[in-house]
Amino acid sequence: MNYILKDENALYYECGYSSDNALYLKCGSEAYFITDSRYTVEAKEKVKGAEVITAPNLITAARKVIKKAKIKKVIYDPKEWSMHAFEVLFAKSSVAFKQMPDFSHKKRIIKSDEELKILTQAAKLGRKAFKALEKEISKNGFGENEYRLTYTAKSILSDFGRYELSFDPIVAVDANAAKPHALPTETKLKKGDLLLVDAGLKYRRYCSDRTRTVYAGKNLYFDTAQQFKSRKIQKAYDTVLKAHDNAIDKARSGMKAKKVDALTRDIIKKAGFGKYFVHSTGHGVGLDIHEMPYISSRSNTVIEDGMVYTIEPGIYIPGEFGIRIEDMVAMVNGRAVVL
Amino acid sequence: MNYILKDENALYYECGYSSDNALYLKCGSEAYFITDSRYTVEAKEKVKGAEVITAPNLITAARKVIKKAKIKKVIYDPKEWSMHAFEVLFAKSSVAFKQMPDFSHKKRIIKSDEELKILTQAAKLGRKAFKALEKEISKNGFGENEYRLTYTAKSILSDFGRYELSFDPIVAVDANAAKPHALPTETKLKKGDLLLVDAGLKYRRYCSDRTRTVYAGKNLYFDTAQQFKSRKIQKAYDTVLKAHDNAIDKARSGMKAKKVDALTRDIIKKAGFGKYFVHSTGHGVGLDIHEMPYISSRSNTVIEDGMVYTIEPGIYIPGEFGIRIEDMVAMVNGRAVVL
Repeated sequence: MNYILKDENALYYECGYSSDNALYLKCGSEAYFITDSRYTVEAKEKVKGAEVITAPNLITAARKVIKKAKIKKVIYDPKEWSMHAFEVLFAKSSVAFKQMPDFSHKKRIIKSDEELKILTQAAKLGRKAFKALEKEISKNGFGENEYRLTYTAKSILSDFGRYELSFDPIVAVDANAAKPHALPTETKLKKGDLLLVDAGLKYRRYCSDRTRTVYAGKNLYFDTAQQFKSRKIQKAYDTVLKAHDNAIDKARSGMKAKKVDALTRDIIKKAGFGKYFVHSTGHGVGLDIHEMPYISSRSNTVIEDGMVYTIEPGIYIPGEFGIRIEDMVAMVNGRAVVL
Repeated sequence: MNYILKDENALYYECGYSSDNALYLKCGSEAYFITDSRYTVEAKEKVKGAEVITAPNLITAARKVIKKAKIKKVIYDPKEWSMHAFEVLFAKSSVAFKQMPDFSHKKRIIKSDEELKILTQAAKLGRKAFKALEKEISKNGFGENEYRLTYTAKSILSDFGRYELSFDPIVAVDANAAKPHALPTETKLKKGDLLLVDAGLKYRRYCSDRTRTVYAGKNLYFDTAQQFKSRKIQKAYDTVLKAHDNAIDKARSGMKAKKVDALTRDIIKKAGFGKYFVHSTGHGVGLDIHEMPYISSRSNTVIEDGMVYTIEPGIYIPGEFGIRIEDMVAMVNGRAVVL
């Protein structure tokens, strides 16, 4: 099977290296890593199982290799290629370029033992960081606004520059937490507020992802046991936690992803919050923070051992508050194990 | 003219708002901002001069509007659209979609007075941040590795979470500075080292960009006047500075961009370092950190008043050291003014 890849994580998965300007080309039994001269030295050191080619124009170089290899068909992912880049690759070519959406993501849906180890370590470091963040916010976070709290989360999650982040952390107070993708505001954290933190870091390029919603009393704890003053918030919180625990408890290999989604959604619906759970239950995690499998109400993907994904039900009451509890799980011996 | 845009900064330029899942559609005299329901409230508050449409599938919504408007031709930028997204937009459509690469970037190449004010302020904040970073590294930076120094640069450039960054700062010591796009390593900063810092921040969404290469003596100063112990480094440094100053001094509106590029390149060539200046002289700066005009040896773009771009010549000796000096300039009354 011949294929050409462009996405950095897709490249890394194939050969253990990537740069921000590179292509990976598999032609029969041969493989090529094509990049520009800024990366020649590093690429030759780190690329495994592929010949390194450096050229000023990567696509022209790829066309030459394809022509020389006398192959007839090359697979590509139409989500990786802009119209513009693809037209340069394709122009007047006698080779058939065949679309396969999510080509690399599909290859990566089942994690190897080595990947599971790395993801376990990423999740462990993420959990440790939440502990450290708990201390720091308890001590210095009250009176600080969301911009500053987000900066604090970035500092601690990255261990002050040691790790990259899976994404920009979400740190949202009270009503701002009602936006699932909240951006920071000037709102300051006060005693008695609700605080939502969604954050992750990368360990050996693999992502962690975790969300806790907590009552910010004198101290605050990123545990799942929480006591809010407001009855309405507490009812919503207990519902989300029940949904979260239910999915972790009952997810099984062999189940369709939409069945796993129903394990959280049905509980939230029954409690009367159905219309406030505005997203899907989870997403795969690996080199990308969002990858397969997607745990949505429409997904027929069959869950299998070796898949890693999030369970993250939520309830969002606009203008009031938002709650989300998220953990990463791996499917092991037919069941979901929290990482 | 009818057009459809997808890039966040292109959208912001049109209507003063964007979200990470949105389209902007101009149909004759009507304009539409199409996003999903997570952003309805914000979009209705902030979008100027366009009707806000919220829909679960943006492309389907755009197709409906296009059909209803009975227009025949819609312009799009093939660099903004993945093959996949475009095919969904285009499928079985009776409308002609016409490619115009860099459509939004071309509109944005001349900055308005308002944009010039914002970019001036962004550059001023960037310069202030370099001053603060100078103090911090002088005091606490020696003995720290590049990861930690990069974290320090991020903290100070962002004013501890207040501003977004134009890009991840480059903080490179000695030989690592020889890579124009250096990633941080475990290398620690010692007295007597060469230190390169390339960093910028965003003010009201517009980017700043600045590079200084300095001798890290007892203290260090992000000024252009530098004294290195090594003669070879000093010669290269003086050459880069001369090239940088020459371009700022002699760039004129009406000149082709390649002529501006030659204003730095010729000096570096004459000094015998030609093959070590491995990139172009500069790039436009605005909502995007890299936009038009590109100041390269092949660009026939004519420089005009209101353009904003960087002048950033460099010399990179692999395994030894790298030097780059970068400032942003605006063309005003025919000449380059440093922002």
